[in-house]
Amino acid sequence: MPKAYIELEDRFRRTALLGESIGMLSWDQSVMMPEGGANARGEQIAALAVIRHSMMTDPVLGELLVDAADSGGLDNWQQANLHEMQRQWVHTTAVPSDLVEAMSMASTNCETVWRSARRDSDFDLVMPSFAEVLNLTRQVGEAKAAVLECDLYDALLDVFEPDGRRSDIDPIFDSYAQFLPDFLDDVLSRQACRPEPKIPPGPFPVAAQRKLVRFMSEAVGLNFETARLDESLHPFSGGIPEDSRITTRYDESDFTLALMGVLHESGHAMYERARPLAWRRQPVGEARGMTIHESQSLLVEMQVCRSRGFLGWAAPVMRDAFQGAGDEWQPENLYRLATHVSRGFIRVDADEVTYPAHVILRYRLESAMLAGDLAIADLPGAWNDGMLELLGATPPNDRLGCLQDIHWYDGAWGYFPTYTLGAMAAAQIFATAEEAAPEITSGISRGDFGPLMAWLGKNVHGKGSLLSTSGLIEHATGRPFGDAHFKAHLRARYLED
Amino acid sequence: MPKAYIELEDRFRRTALLGESIGMLSWDQSVMMPEGGANARGEQIAALAVIRHSMMTDPVLGELLVDAADSGGLDNWQQANLHEMQRQWVHTTAVPSDLVEAMSMASTNCETVWRSARRDSDFDLVMPSFAEVLNLTRQVGEAKAAVLECDLYDALLDVFEPDGRRSDIDPIFDSYAQFLPDFLDDVLSRQACRPEPKIPPGPFPVAAQRKLVRFMSEAVGLNFETARLDESLHPFSGGIPEDSRITTRYDESDFTLALMGVLHESGHAMYERARPLAWRRQPVGEARGMTIHESQSLLVEMQVCRSRGFLGWAAPVMRDAFQGAGDEWQPENLYRLATHVSRGFIRVDADEVTYPAHVILRYRLESAMLAGDLAIADLPGAWNDGMLELLGATPPNDRLGCLQDIHWYDGAWGYFPTYTLGAMAAAQIFATAEEAAPEITSGISRGDFGPLMAWLGKNVHGKGSLLSTSGLIEHATGRPFGDAHFKAHLRARYLED
Repeated sequence: MPKAYIELEDRFRRTALLGESIGMLSWDQSVMMPEGGANARGEQIAALAVIRHSMMTDPVLGELLVDAADSGGLDNWQQANLHEMQRQWVHTTAVPSDLVEAMSMASTNCETVWRSARRDSDFDLVMPSFAEVLNLTRQVGEAKAAVLECDLYDALLDVFEPDGRRSDIDPIFDSYAQFLPDFLDDVLSRQACRPEPKIPPGPFPVAAQRKLVRFMSEAVGLNFETARLDESLHPFSGGIPEDSRITTRYDESDFTLALMGVLHESGHAMYERARPLAWRRQPVGEARGMTIHESQSLLVEMQVCRSRGFLGWAAPVMRDAFQGAGDEWQPENLYRLATHVSRGFIRVDADEVTYPAHVILRYRLESAMLAGDLAIADLPGAWNDGMLELLGATPPNDRLGCLQDIHWYDGAWGYFPTYTLGAMAAAQIFATAEEAAPEITSGISRGDFGPLMAWLGKNVHGKGSLLSTSGLIEHATGRPFGDAHFKAHLRARYLED
Repeated sequence: MPKAYIELEDRFRRTALLGESIGMLSWDQSVMMPEGGANARGEQIAALAVIRHSMMTDPVLGELLVDAADSGGLDNWQQANLHEMQRQWVHTTAVPSDLVEAMSMASTNCETVWRSARRDSDFDLVMPSFAEVLNLTRQVGEAKAAVLECDLYDALLDVFEPDGRRSDIDPIFDSYAQFLPDFLDDVLSRQACRPEPKIPPGPFPVAAQRKLVRFMSEAVGLNFETARLDESLHPFSGGIPEDSRITTRYDESDFTLALMGVLHESGHAMYERARPLAWRRQPVGEARGMTIHESQSLLVEMQVCRSRGFLGWAAPVMRDAFQGAGDEWQPENLYRLATHVSRGFIRVDADEVTYPAHVILRYRLESAMLAGDLAIADLPGAWNDGMLELLGATPPNDRLGCLQDIHWYDGAWGYFPTYTLGAMAAAQIFATAEEAAPEITSGISRGDFGPLMAWLGKNVHGKGSLLSTSGLIEHATGRPFGDAHFKAHLRARYLED
């Protein structure tokens, strides 16, 4: 192995350890920290981030990357590792540090204003700081695009979806946008012909919910000798493979929020836990971007846990957890509840049929704003037009419209597409897994995720970042990545079932 | 202000932020982390420690320290800050890095062997690795002594008790060793003439204990918007002034262990919280060594919370916490329990009368081992002889003797004296506080620690490391540091009361 490459592995290992430490401090901040600690925690994390940044921008690192690439003698994994090192290096060094600082300040400021603007449904309030975020985001994108030799949007997308390209996303999203209106009409008319599913009567005590979701998380595969499950305002999955930290929140009037949330986060955690151990703390050993990550949480939550097979096993477990009785706890009723479709305005509350419409709208609008084809002042109108076109309904105000998500205001541009690409990847991967191993389907109907996780571990999780997103999906499924399986899944679940 | 000094403040601020981050990761490790995370956490903390070490050993730092000292123009606090910076620099740079590493490995190894040796009461088992730790400790001490221009023991003591000197400790400890045997006889005969105090009958449910100790901690002054109280195997006080993290453990058969433990840790935390804000993250803003730290926990636990005044208020609170009834809950009975004296073999279980004997024994033995006057093979015998001389009893085995404490085996030499110096400082400081402000005494009898904490904040906590330990005590009490108040306190509580 070339000396330069060995030195690079050592440097990236140290950077990864700093990243893990920052992750731990952030977990504590969201889950454990008393509010008085906020400022000090911000300073601690910033100090570690500055150190990590200086390690990543050390000119010697740039030289080592060139030397390692020139000297050859690397195997597949090492080459992919070097490639991911280069990617991290580009994202860190392409943007001048004064622009990084300006972007950080502008998005912190804009996020604060956005909280008031959303509360009061007052888009004008956030416009000036939003314009500043957009302006700086464009500069960041241009700086990265110049080095990555791609267009501005793709350069921003690359942070969340490495090697993702608009030219690949457009046809998939356009096709779904065309497919949806008629399909949604069909689904809703079919749903209207059936009696409304019954909602099990609460309240559902938090202690009982806690026990149930922990049990379900263990069924998915989490082992609490190497994991924790806690509460936080915004649920997330964090930690490291040997020490997963997932969170949820409890609503005593509806246990399915915590339950489906924990199943979702467990899917994320199972991916993190089965990354290739031999490449721990190396870029190639990390998860392959947000599309694949979201595919793993949605595979568990949407493909598996909202299925008849799973709910047949889970329904009595849920019923017993709350000492319930009555028809509401019948598997078929819970299945109807878990797959209920509606035209809603809020993305995070959307079902799997309409969710992509929310994403496609945001993707189109952020592309247009970045390209200069849509002025910020025209965003609320364009949003409402898009909702009408895609979902056939117009939000009554901007709080339920273009002010609902934090992403843009916080500087996360190019993130949205990964939600729906993930949902589509989940359908394609799960269909392949079920075809490949019948014990996966039968296992799920007994609450046994072992065969599914073994297949995913081998074909997806264990690959780390060895392949590109599309390469990984093609390798795992034997077919190019597309939306065919997702549409087939929706047709089967919502029209034929 | 000289430029070099300004640069130093900036560098030490960043080092302190790393220290806070390490502290947070350690807290999580002891309190929250699932066991599977242990190895990864070790690596994370080691990575941050290496970075901190490289920041502290940067040759530029040494030059800045010289420049700042030469240029003058510093006020009292700045001069003291520079002095503490120099101290940290000496302790970090005086020892060659290969010796630091060897010491770290030897003490980790010896600690592991010690756990088995203690379990089996087998001193021979630990002898070889213990000899290695002693040998390396001596080398570390010699390296520091050469720079600090003091003797070997004082160089080790300096880590825990800055500027502490054996020549100051010897007369105090010798005097107590002479005082104790007769005094203890008197105390025990007097105690024998009274009926045994009655132990309130348990069990004491953990939930009720948790509520009680939290309430008591708030009475001392902790505010849980800027603090947490959790559980860990070994109770400790950690965190930062704005986010205190204290821990305890619960025994359902005896609530006083958690209660007294939390009061003790609350005393530590109150000190940390009232350090001078203007000097946050600077060496002079830190706590003034282990003697003063222990004085603040013992002042709360021993001086205040085992007093008749406090227990008169606290007894009914405790009784109600456990819905108790009967004579056992009378303040006088609980006071007799809280001040019960006995000849025990175990330091951590000792009462305040006999505790110093345990410390004096260890201090004498570690001094002799470091000086080469006591061979390791002769330690068990010397221990037993010392116990007989000081406490009039010989432990039946080494598990209850020289194997009971982790300190030496883990490489903490020169730590023990601070426990008893702290107890003596607590007596002197509390006596002065009560003389100065009568509302302190009356407040305590109503469960109001406000006046006491205000006085301590002004006279002790807020001084940070501006003065030496003895200077701080003399400043706060108007008298040189000595054992007179401690002995007077013991006489008053155990013979005249």
